[in-house]
Amino acid sequence: MSRITVRRKVVRLTVGQNPTTREDVLAAEEPLEIRVNGRSLAVTMRTPGNDYDLAAGFLVSEGVITRGEHFFTARYCAGATDDEGENTYNVLDVSLAPGVRPPDPSLERSFLTTSSCGLCGKASIDAVRTKSSFPVAEDPLRVSAELLITFPDALREAQAVFEKTGGIHAAALFDGATGRMLVLREDVGRHNAVDKVIGWALKENLLPLSGTVLMVSSRASFELAQKAMMAGIPVLAAVSAPSSLAAEFAAEVGMTLVGFLRGDSMVIYAGAERIDSESAARSRAVIAG
Amino acid sequence: MSRITVRRKVVRLTVGQNPTTREDVLAAEEPLEIRVNGRSLAVTMRTPGNDYDLAAGFLVSEGVITRGEHFFTARYCAGATDDEGENTYNVLDVSLAPGVRPPDPSLERSFLTTSSCGLCGKASIDAVRTKSSFPVAEDPLRVSAELLITFPDALREAQAVFEKTGGIHAAALFDGATGRMLVLREDVGRHNAVDKVIGWALKENLLPLSGTVLMVSSRASFELAQKAMMAGIPVLAAVSAPSSLAAEFAAEVGMTLVGFLRGDSMVIYAGAERIDSESAARSRAVIAG
Repeated sequence: MSRITVRRKVVRLTVGQNPTTREDVLAAEEPLEIRVNGRSLAVTMRTPGNDYDLAAGFLVSEGVITRGEHFFTARYCAGATDDEGENTYNVLDVSLAPGVRPPDPSLERSFLTTSSCGLCGKASIDAVRTKSSFPVAEDPLRVSAELLITFPDALREAQAVFEKTGGIHAAALFDGATGRMLVLREDVGRHNAVDKVIGWALKENLLPLSGTVLMVSSRASFELAQKAMMAGIPVLAAVSAPSSLAAEFAAEVGMTLVGFLRGDSMVIYAGAERIDSESAARSRAVIAG
Repeated sequence: MSRITVRRKVVRLTVGQNPTTREDVLAAEEPLEIRVNGRSLAVTMRTPGNDYDLAAGFLVSEGVITRGEHFFTARYCAGATDDEGENTYNVLDVSLAPGVRPPDPSLERSFLTTSSCGLCGKASIDAVRTKSSFPVAEDPLRVSAELLITFPDALREAQAVFEKTGGIHAAALFDGATGRMLVLREDVGRHNAVDKVIGWALKENLLPLSGTVLMVSSRASFELAQKAMMAGIPVLAAVSAPSSLAAEFAAEVGMTLVGFLRGDSMVIYAGAERIDSESAARSRAVIAG
């Protein structure tokens, strides 16, 4: 498989310069459903490749197997096809050797989440996608690039814990028009930090979060984009790179996804029409004039 | 609650200098069990604080609630106590407003994992801890600090994808005596990268992984430490910070945990006796002589 990276057209924007469109390389993210003896056990969002190792290692980590001979065979399910009937290679069925007890998913193992987990408890790929009551595609927000580049510093300044420990994620919600920070939350898990922001907004009766920008101190995964959509947030901005699926998902639901928001520049992976750049507009005006 | 950070005695070691012991501040990581209407729904490893927001945001992200009035009350279970009978504040029971349908954890939602999830599918805190067949405490490995500081560069040089995408994690297994890299795996999820390494080792019949060092390009969480233990790996080294629970867990099971392994220095959070420093030994010899 050569699906470790995915190419995608992106817009690179540096304040004071005209935006440029180029092809970028993203780390591939796709769901893998792990079945054991035909029974669905777990879905993990992973980079394709070494899936047999991933399934085997997962079973070791979970205490199901400890020796190579416990893992009998594994094969991709032929029935797991995409819209065009091609095998997605996203459902792997592991057969344990005779005598090895398969895990019992019904026992105390349901709807699971972890410190950095957003699509929690879905034991089959169909259950990964959630449906939002708040369509973000219609959100008329436009954000100035000049404002957007001030968010990372605002985030860092407001972080109480990071400086001390170097090991915590932050998520902050900004008003997209004024740039005012509405709330900041921190956690060892980036998904928890985002959930804390969304839970705060629920408490304040601010859902849907139209006109806001969610800024995260980390990478942007599919789960983070999905959480933003569930709260009606039209713009997700990350200090680091997004995954391929985060970008695809954002484009699909009409969300703006910004990555590598650092210094005076950013890369726009979806919904570039929401990002205005005054200086770019000015330079266009000069050219036009 | 003031449990956002935890203080811990650590050893700071810079090659060519004597190790120093100091107190360090770690980001707190503790499990939170979220119950809905009395029924256990999810466990997330989180930094304590804003737990009501976390639970509310999680329920929004999962599509269970969309408005403030759906979330009726939340309270910490009085019965969730530690060994000394004190409330742990780690079990939160959410009551939904009448008429709001609680999620059904039995429906396609079991044993869940995600791109960065290690303790998957445990819907109650008791189920978080796994038991290893491979005790790491007895592993006689000693690693030279001079060798250890070469691992991050080796990891980066071997990473095929990171340079291109800037958004992927790596995990590599090293022979602790020779420093030879045995395998490297990459993934959008750091837990997947580690599972891929362990699965490879299972296939090669190398379990338990005595005498090895697992190096990760990320932070070290409880889940990563637990995965290392399940595979019998005695030393876990991370480029970034560990969580408080990762350090406590490593100390408890007799694993060596190294963080901030950068340049020619590192911070040792547990099991410092396994790290030898020749230069420190030499300088001690000079002082003694």
